[in-house]
Amino acid sequence: MSTTRLALDAMGGDNAPAIVIKGADVAKAKNPDLEFVFVGDSERIKPYLSRSIHLKNATIIHADEKVESDENVSQAVRKGKETSMWKAIAEVKAGTCDAVVSAGNTGALMAISKLQLRPMDGVKRPAIATFLPTAKRQVCMLDLGANIECDTENLVQFAIMGAAFSRSILDVKDPSIGLLNVGEEDQKGHEYLRDAADILANPEFGMNYQGFVEGTDITKGEMDVVVTDGFTGNVALKTAEGTAMLITDLLKTAFKESVLTKIAYLLARAAMKRMRSRLDPRVHNGAVFLGLNGIAVKSHGGTDEIGYANAIKVAADLVEHGFMPDVQNALRRFASVSETQLVSKEEA
Amino acid sequence: MSTTRLALDAMGGDNAPAIVIKGADVAKAKNPDLEFVFVGDSERIKPYLSRSIHLKNATIIHADEKVESDENVSQAVRKGKETSMWKAIAEVKAGTCDAVVSAGNTGALMAISKLQLRPMDGVKRPAIATFLPTAKRQVCMLDLGANIECDTENLVQFAIMGAAFSRSILDVKDPSIGLLNVGEEDQKGHEYLRDAADILANPEFGMNYQGFVEGTDITKGEMDVVVTDGFTGNVALKTAEGTAMLITDLLKTAFKESVLTKIAYLLARAAMKRMRSRLDPRVHNGAVFLGLNGIAVKSHGGTDEIGYANAIKVAADLVEHGFMPDVQNALRRFASVSETQLVSKEEA
Repeated sequence: MSTTRLALDAMGGDNAPAIVIKGADVAKAKNPDLEFVFVGDSERIKPYLSRSIHLKNATIIHADEKVESDENVSQAVRKGKETSMWKAIAEVKAGTCDAVVSAGNTGALMAISKLQLRPMDGVKRPAIATFLPTAKRQVCMLDLGANIECDTENLVQFAIMGAAFSRSILDVKDPSIGLLNVGEEDQKGHEYLRDAADILANPEFGMNYQGFVEGTDITKGEMDVVVTDGFTGNVALKTAEGTAMLITDLLKTAFKESVLTKIAYLLARAAMKRMRSRLDPRVHNGAVFLGLNGIAVKSHGGTDEIGYANAIKVAADLVEHGFMPDVQNALRRFASVSETQLVSKEEA
Repeated sequence: MSTTRLALDAMGGDNAPAIVIKGADVAKAKNPDLEFVFVGDSERIKPYLSRSIHLKNATIIHADEKVESDENVSQAVRKGKETSMWKAIAEVKAGTCDAVVSAGNTGALMAISKLQLRPMDGVKRPAIATFLPTAKRQVCMLDLGANIECDTENLVQFAIMGAAFSRSILDVKDPSIGLLNVGEEDQKGHEYLRDAADILANPEFGMNYQGFVEGTDITKGEMDVVVTDGFTGNVALKTAEGTAMLITDLLKTAFKESVLTKIAYLLARAAMKRMRSRLDPRVHNGAVFLGLNGIAVKSHGGTDEIGYANAIKVAADLVEHGFMPDVQNALRRFASVSETQLVSKEEA
């Protein structure tokens, strides 16, 4: 296998640059074919690299500035080309790196990635996607917040990109696709949703479209890809996270109630640990901006080195599995059908 | 305390009429001031009443027809005045009952309630609301699906109605209100959301508006009322339910793993039971159509008698705490301010 070269925004995230370098170390131990370029304050990066086992000779690109996590997008963009985030993305644009990973400010990462890498030919709106744990399999959900307002064509393109993402990362042959709605009946929901359903169900598309799904269906794992607008997707993802946190906290409290429950915890510890690992947000770390001329992966800002290493793995898998050509082919294949159907809808 | 008289759609729900009558029995045992009118197939209702402890002399209103759970709204409405659902709601319209409870078809219950009871003076759109468990308190969330598309005024009215609901059911003096969004910053989300935030934050309104909240905040319990459009609210509620189901199932599996985990379960059983009761959907059963000239409560279709009794309690609490005059006063108080601000926004 050939080398995959990743640009890492070493200054992004709550515990940067420590977690970024430790995470790269964990990833490199598992996959020696990875090469890293650390972008950020070289004086702060060097000590960590010198203590690392696998990264002693890694490249550093110095950046004087960084994007703060609480900065708004326009401030971050105005800061310009001297930030570690901008410079890391520039490596992908220049073709010197295959993908970029950052745990920094999501809005800024999206805006600066879009500015530099530009949307792929034919992609109207890039989208943020990630995988969620379910009862059966991991489900790819998108958009998670890049596009607050969406139309029919956006949703259809999200379905195409989500399917390619699922093929690249999980090796699913023919990903099943559901459109998130408030009911499974055909007449439910926004008009642009029903129009998207009509297009996706068109057999000429050759998509494995399964129909509308509801919020309860996301975690059932009946679908490989759940498509929605960025507002709803963001709320759904965060509501799932909040609910999981609530139950986990209640469970912790329950196990601390008495001597008996503490003994119970000791007896069940291994099983509880396995359960937690299925829900572990670190395992599912790594949201991707799909639809750009380059791969940009966003890590959770507060993750640890295990989580960061997973975000690196997502970026590497996308590179190695040819995600970009897959999406481009799918877009070309579907462009004519989609256009015909969208135009006929507008004329009707 | 004076008697509260409730019309129960005896034919609505998966296990009707059994659960309806058993639920009424449970509710009556706790609150002898309740009186019930059972609407439905009298031949099927009578045997249950004769076996009941508290309901031997309850009134029955016979109905030949019923609304099926899978019927679409227009079919249900066309079936007309002979269904148990229609007749139960008609009791509220006629003033012979104070509120109606049904575990039947949600869309039909909403449509038929709206047709018969009509929206309150000043209410543009009635909304569905319910309470959810959180880390701290119960939070009222609305709208949960009555209004797929919402504008600024709708959201402001939902906030008013949600606050009155919270006062009626939980006796919260000055309910704190959050608007569901994809971030807490002022510039985030749909324009109509930002406009609603401006109005709610106006001190002349006297609302306890706390700002934007995210999906993760719903279950934190920092707010008494979370306001959103019906599409997002429906997806968020169902995603939370789905996530809770997933984790509960994983927990069950974990406790069944080995002899040790089975012993652990026995030791922790009481604590686990207390935890489950906090999340118990039966405790939170009873969604309300807020904003009509009459109180209509929707029970989960698949609940048991404990859950149904809780939906009855919600209806009775709304009657006894004067929910309707509370909302009417609030609407009047805020109408002029709201109108001025909405008009000035449109002119700007």
